[in-house]
Amino acid sequence: MTATGAREGRRGGREARRQARTAVQIRALPVLERRVPVYEVLNPAGLERIHEASLQILEQVGIDFRDAEALELWKEAGAEVERWRVRIPRELLMALVAKAPAEFTVHARNPERSTVIGGDRVAFAPTYGSPFVYDFDNQRRYGTLADLNDFHKLAYMSPAMHNTGSVVCEPVDVVVPKRHLHITYSAIRHSDKPFMGPVTAPERAEDAVEMVKILFGEEFVERNTVMISLVNCNSPLVWDETMLGALKVYARANQAVIVAPFVLAGANTPASAMGAVAQLNAEALAGIAFAQLCRPAAPMIYGHFLAAVSMRSGAPMAGTPELALMNYAIGQLVRKYRLPMRSSGMLCGAKTVDAQAAYESVQTMWPVLLCGANYVMHSAGWMEAGLAASFAKFVLDAEQIEMFYKFGQGPQFDDLEDALRAVREVGPGGHYLGTEHTQSHFQTAFLIPELADNNSFEQWQLDGSRDATARALETARRMLDTYEPPALDPAVDEALLGFIREREAVLPDSMD
Amino acid sequence: MTATGAREGRRGGREARRQARTAVQIRALPVLERRVPVYEVLNPAGLERIHEASLQILEQVGIDFRDAEALELWKEAGAEVERWRVRIPRELLMALVAKAPAEFTVHARNPERSTVIGGDRVAFAPTYGSPFVYDFDNQRRYGTLADLNDFHKLAYMSPAMHNTGSVVCEPVDVVVPKRHLHITYSAIRHSDKPFMGPVTAPERAEDAVEMVKILFGEEFVERNTVMISLVNCNSPLVWDETMLGALKVYARANQAVIVAPFVLAGANTPASAMGAVAQLNAEALAGIAFAQLCRPAAPMIYGHFLAAVSMRSGAPMAGTPELALMNYAIGQLVRKYRLPMRSSGMLCGAKTVDAQAAYESVQTMWPVLLCGANYVMHSAGWMEAGLAASFAKFVLDAEQIEMFYKFGQGPQFDDLEDALRAVREVGPGGHYLGTEHTQSHFQTAFLIPELADNNSFEQWQLDGSRDATARALETARRMLDTYEPPALDPAVDEALLGFIREREAVLPDSMD
Repeated sequence: MTATGAREGRRGGREARRQARTAVQIRALPVLERRVPVYEVLNPAGLERIHEASLQILEQVGIDFRDAEALELWKEAGAEVERWRVRIPRELLMALVAKAPAEFTVHARNPERSTVIGGDRVAFAPTYGSPFVYDFDNQRRYGTLADLNDFHKLAYMSPAMHNTGSVVCEPVDVVVPKRHLHITYSAIRHSDKPFMGPVTAPERAEDAVEMVKILFGEEFVERNTVMISLVNCNSPLVWDETMLGALKVYARANQAVIVAPFVLAGANTPASAMGAVAQLNAEALAGIAFAQLCRPAAPMIYGHFLAAVSMRSGAPMAGTPELALMNYAIGQLVRKYRLPMRSSGMLCGAKTVDAQAAYESVQTMWPVLLCGANYVMHSAGWMEAGLAASFAKFVLDAEQIEMFYKFGQGPQFDDLEDALRAVREVGPGGHYLGTEHTQSHFQTAFLIPELADNNSFEQWQLDGSRDATARALETARRMLDTYEPPALDPAVDEALLGFIREREAVLPDSMD
Repeated sequence: MTATGAREGRRGGREARRQARTAVQIRALPVLERRVPVYEVLNPAGLERIHEASLQILEQVGIDFRDAEALELWKEAGAEVERWRVRIPRELLMALVAKAPAEFTVHARNPERSTVIGGDRVAFAPTYGSPFVYDFDNQRRYGTLADLNDFHKLAYMSPAMHNTGSVVCEPVDVVVPKRHLHITYSAIRHSDKPFMGPVTAPERAEDAVEMVKILFGEEFVERNTVMISLVNCNSPLVWDETMLGALKVYARANQAVIVAPFVLAGANTPASAMGAVAQLNAEALAGIAFAQLCRPAAPMIYGHFLAAVSMRSGAPMAGTPELALMNYAIGQLVRKYRLPMRSSGMLCGAKTVDAQAAYESVQTMWPVLLCGANYVMHSAGWMEAGLAASFAKFVLDAEQIEMFYKFGQGPQFDDLEDALRAVREVGPGGHYLGTEHTQSHFQTAFLIPELADNNSFEQWQLDGSRDATARALETARRMLDTYEPPALDPAVDEALLGFIREREAVLPDSMD
């Protein structure tokens, strides 16, 4: 990639200065400020029909909040509560949703990496939650903490990844009760970009909040958002105790949460693309409204995970046309509510990084960019409906994301007059390669992807007839070989490690 | 693919009835009537700047028409002619362009396959012009007439391919002076969809016109368009004698021509995306205007072929962000001129059907659909910057095109009320798979691609751990095994073969 890029600036402190002298300067792109329009597939009447359907679902069918405190909060606020079931009047719902900010900043420990979420901005984050990895021998096996460290390093070194992520792969070699500590530490230590927090239990969310207080200072964290976490709704229409527990911790700590219905369309939604959108919209709005009961103005991201279920096999599918239509429709709804939006970028169901993997990933990503999503999870590395994270696909996807980024910057006109002078100079039948205009503009005019092989067939054979996966694995290896950690104050690092030791002393080694 | 489809109806005639009794009924989709909006990246001022730049290029720099008759026609029309150079006043240019129809029908020998080109319609056609093929053993070798027959059969059997194409691969085993006869016959014989004509010499274009007169009747061809042919501008700003020769033959015979600047952006255009668009717009408009001098209202398609040149290697690149921006900008210009537009769909530079091939193809196709292109060449099979056509990629691409087709039909609301009833019925925590609504809607609600493997890793292993390419080759083989030719009146067939014999008797065996 040569077309766009901002150099990392120097950071304060002795350690940072030492680092700056020795470190490989990484390329990092700021959050994309999208200068191309959004794309819309719904007319105003269609948009209103879905909005109205969602309100009716929450008023008439209701939604389960399987958490005693949550039910109390809803009752106090004026909702109709019957066992777990909450029916939310539309005025109450919309008044709560309106309290959520339209945009907010997620601070990074390197201030240059802080990202504004919302509006016309787009931030990209890697894949999340895979128990398996496709490793450097392209073999599928359970993920380890070493793999996770490597993914966090790659996220740090990928210019268009704006977030380090969290559990890119599950570090299965760390026991579950202690795993969140090591995941969070890995994201902090190996990158200086914002990262995501654990949600598997409220106490684990609390541990993460403690860790960011060590990293940023307690007062800073109280006043600022430094973490984005992900809670999923159990569709249809159930917010469970675990997810609500994490949501409450983060919302009360002023930390951002992606409130995401997990849609397997046709299985946990009706077999109707727009019907599924109406249901997930009800689920997301109810979750965001609830967060405002925990802390008014808590920063929330309207999220969703979308797959369609193959009615032949029951398997989730990615990259199909209805999912594209759904992403566009959801984008229109989220703009109506003036909320930041999360979607998922480079999804696929493939078991090898083949044409299927790439077709489905780009089929997913175009609608995600053009629907106006502000925070794009699963932008790099996702395989096999999320069951596995691939190093090869991580770097391939990351390069595709750089191309989407460049597209999102829109058409450039500043070089047009010069270009027209070149047309006059060259004239019919001429050639542009030797002109002064070409010499001075070629570095920026057309992005040149590094992982694409556009050489002749003969040259490609001479180079070993390697497919994109083989080239990508070599690139990923080279990146990790040249990786140098971003500076981290040794005192802070020691405090984080101390906190982990302290917690590990009291946490059990198994879930029993 | 199970979501959309129209059955082939019966055709008249004894042969057709026999055929209908025995033939495998093929699925065929009518030309897409796009029900989603176009996407635009230029504001009105940006659009006008490019339009104005193109007019200035044609008025001030001029464009070469390297054909004596063409120069005479331009002089008579009032352009300024100096040797090959033609400078065209904007009023003359736009008056001529306005004579070209905004849409027209290309008739097929099976009337159900006739396609309207223009407006909100989209027709897809296979790749074109590759000397090499990747065969059923996935080996790269020169193409043969047998390969071309197979590609024409696959185009016939692919529901979203609306055109059989022409020289999908070059039949290198047929001598060049006679090749056009066999290419055209193959397209006529193996499919009943519209097809494309040869352009390599005016006499070859004349042979194709004779062949369609045999097929459709002389009078029908004089009054109707039955063929689309492709002429390329030698950018920058040269229309050469060969291409103008074919253009004149087809335009005078009322046959459609795609007038297509062949852009290697940065090499034969300025190193500026919008500058390149200004130049190619001048080239396309000049060609379309010239066709109107040959026959007013001759059906023309505003075309282009877009690649960007890697400034590192000189190789053409596909799927990069500037090419997407250029497609969108060109779409806006073409709508301003009220012309049908051609673009190119599934382009890539890969030498194997890997992730690169698929990333680049879908990166190309999304902008092509949303820019409003009406005729999409290279929708299936393109590899290696067009040097090779792949059977595997043909069927993979064709399935992706079916997905774009479904997207283009837009969101469906007719199932929304039923879906909301299902939400009430299932309620929080329930499951939709067993509901009556799901049972009755699952066939149409979510498209299920057949070539995507979304099974578990374990099932995929049991099935042989085959990647998308291996699965696609098997599908292509199975399609060809079950292929049955569409009915063709034996008398017409004999007349076509007689014409070929007659021409072969007088044509030389070599170009010397």
